[in-house]
Amino acid sequence: MKFIKTPVKGMCDMLPSDMRLREHVLSMIKKSYGQYGFMQIETPIVEHIENLTSKQGGDNEKLIFKVMKRGAELQRAIDKGDGEYADNGLRYDLTLPLARYYACNKEKLPSPFKALQMGNVYRADNPQKGRFRQFTQCDIDILGDDSSLAEIELITATASMLTQIFAEINITDFTIHINDRRILGAVALCAGFAEEDVGSVLISLDKFDKIGLAGIEKELLENGYAQETVDKYLSVYRAVKEGITIDAFCQGIDEAYLPAGVKQNLSDIIESVAPVLAQGVKIVFDPTLVRGMGYYTGPIFEITMDGYNFSIAGGGRYDKMIGKFSGQDVAASGFSIGFERIVTILKDHMQDASKLPEGSTAYLLGNKVSLERKAEVLSTARRLREDGTVVTVLPMAKNMKHQIGLLEAEGYTKFEKIYE
Amino acid sequence: MKFIKTPVKGMCDMLPSDMRLREHVLSMIKKSYGQYGFMQIETPIVEHIENLTSKQGGDNEKLIFKVMKRGAELQRAIDKGDGEYADNGLRYDLTLPLARYYACNKEKLPSPFKALQMGNVYRADNPQKGRFRQFTQCDIDILGDDSSLAEIELITATASMLTQIFAEINITDFTIHINDRRILGAVALCAGFAEEDVGSVLISLDKFDKIGLAGIEKELLENGYAQETVDKYLSVYRAVKEGITIDAFCQGIDEAYLPAGVKQNLSDIIESVAPVLAQGVKIVFDPTLVRGMGYYTGPIFEITMDGYNFSIAGGGRYDKMIGKFSGQDVAASGFSIGFERIVTILKDHMQDASKLPEGSTAYLLGNKVSLERKAEVLSTARRLREDGTVVTVLPMAKNMKHQIGLLEAEGYTKFEKIYE
Repeated sequence: MKFIKTPVKGMCDMLPSDMRLREHVLSMIKKSYGQYGFMQIETPIVEHIENLTSKQGGDNEKLIFKVMKRGAELQRAIDKGDGEYADNGLRYDLTLPLARYYACNKEKLPSPFKALQMGNVYRADNPQKGRFRQFTQCDIDILGDDSSLAEIELITATASMLTQIFAEINITDFTIHINDRRILGAVALCAGFAEEDVGSVLISLDKFDKIGLAGIEKELLENGYAQETVDKYLSVYRAVKEGITIDAFCQGIDEAYLPAGVKQNLSDIIESVAPVLAQGVKIVFDPTLVRGMGYYTGPIFEITMDGYNFSIAGGGRYDKMIGKFSGQDVAASGFSIGFERIVTILKDHMQDASKLPEGSTAYLLGNKVSLERKAEVLSTARRLREDGTVVTVLPMAKNMKHQIGLLEAEGYTKFEKIYE
Repeated sequence: MKFIKTPVKGMCDMLPSDMRLREHVLSMIKKSYGQYGFMQIETPIVEHIENLTSKQGGDNEKLIFKVMKRGAELQRAIDKGDGEYADNGLRYDLTLPLARYYACNKEKLPSPFKALQMGNVYRADNPQKGRFRQFTQCDIDILGDDSSLAEIELITATASMLTQIFAEINITDFTIHINDRRILGAVALCAGFAEEDVGSVLISLDKFDKIGLAGIEKELLENGYAQETVDKYLSVYRAVKEGITIDAFCQGIDEAYLPAGVKQNLSDIIESVAPVLAQGVKIVFDPTLVRGMGYYTGPIFEITMDGYNFSIAGGGRYDKMIGKFSGQDVAASGFSIGFERIVTILKDHMQDASKLPEGSTAYLLGNKVSLERKAEVLSTARRLREDGTVVTVLPMAKNMKHQIGLLEAEGYTKFEKIYE
């Protein structure tokens, strides 16, 4: 018998303590976003292979778990020998299925539509510490709103949610970084880069935190761009001081590259969000924020926790993506929360959330207990359960000390031993 | 561009109202089983193909969604041309992954271990009304307890959970049917069937509700069994009257076929469960209860709702299954709840659970609203949200009546229109 005990490579079995923590975080996320009017939806984990390989997913398309055709269709594909053995695949993110979902169900949904998705996605990546092949993503998106109100709601909702979750481990300080793809583009064009090179230039600028301006200069020159253009481009970022305003940063950019509406929109967001943030949370214009995904078209944003060198949430506006699928442009902006990261941080700081609630009680029944005594125990257990207490009734193990030890590890604190 | 808007065949997009109802039911299940000491666990949706095709899954193994090998491994399989293109598959139930999970994680878990699993399973079945290719299963299992306490806890926990859920639609009457595979076997052997024919005879008896004793007689004779054996066998079931006791039913069965311990165990379960059931719920010995799965070894049980002709939950003891995988027998008993059925019944009776909570408020902002006014609205919204109210802030649509109609359908009842 060829039986494999371990889970599939790169995927995890969740122990009860893992699940308690994950469920705790999920329920806080649901509640918090729910109060902001985001509505939970779900798409199947299995998606059409045509949709998954339609070039919207960038590198993720190389990592698809493909699902095989079945029956006669599979036989046809084998006979044909064209390698087209898959008709489906596992979704690699929640954004692509959302685009399909919205195209399919738009008529039944309020407009604008505020979606909350929490679910597993699959990437056949090389597994490494903290990176899995099945992991939970948590996204909010507002579809059909082309105004700054979409970003204001996305950012205030996420800041409020993170504030609530991290208050439990006394982390209160977050920074919301915000920028706009159109400003990033205007700076590059203004410096003399060609329109078609902007994407490549932004990939270099995106490494600012890792390699600094000197590293970016080196890379841009290596990529064959003229020294003069690179100098002009980087001089703009060299002049950046902490707390620089949008207007100050943009003052050298020609209106032809950057309409006033873009700056106004970005400062609208900042001015509207700032007053409703909790103590310790701030929103700053960050002219070096790029964010990797190619599909962003407007404001982009990221949240960092002071003292941690990674972002805990990130998103932006992607007005052109849904239209590529449905044939009809739909304004869209979204925020993706690093669920697995949040869980990892909480796991390090917060023992209680992975334990059973206070007062959880285990009745251990010896094998000589009479039916009458057992009936009494079950009746008491029923009353306690109705009052909301966690109660388990178990046969007493031969090695009771070991049994109790493992129950204590889960959070049971009261033990009633019934011998007869 | 080849883009497909509809979900994959046989799988569903969940609308917000679907999700609210499903989340409501899931949270009641979690809470109720949690109070009985069942601990939530999770296994990956993707499972080793070797495990899925190890003959434990019966007909479900014909319905596997297979996941293709990737990269060099796939190329090797294609070059070899042996058709072994899949290394993984999507789980078709939660019991097989549980067996693997327990074999892998046993040392870290309390013993006996009370597991709660809620998750999606996948079967490439022909889709039909109410049957999907991705659907949610909800199972509880007790591993490592060979005593009747396991069944007592499984049954009381499930009865209590169903009572709570269905109280909301004023359904209070359930019947718990219970029988034992060893009694079913003893009756057949005693009538003169050969040991190796018992499985086939039980498959016929399982159709009692559909075809009655006359139909069973016809089928058994068609299957080539002797008239005399069939007569003797069915005479036992002909004598059954409502409310028959275990002892009365078993009185003609030789102790060689049926040790007294089996009867005692079953009546223990009934006597222990009955007193802790809610008003309207009863537990009855049902000698014609068979349950399809081949792997059951002891007590089997099912719950029906009076007035519905299908079971809402079913389960039994399967002491030999985990050992087949892990090489070490582990006593096991489980109960599987018809989650999709419960949701369907509630959907017909219960509008409220699929709506937003009372008092949910939508602010609709016209496009002339000043930054100052918007700030006031956001600040008010923040206060209401902190008090627990669902508040959404949206741009006013051109067709506001249509917009409000769709928001009302979700459950928004208060609308604040801000024009400037």
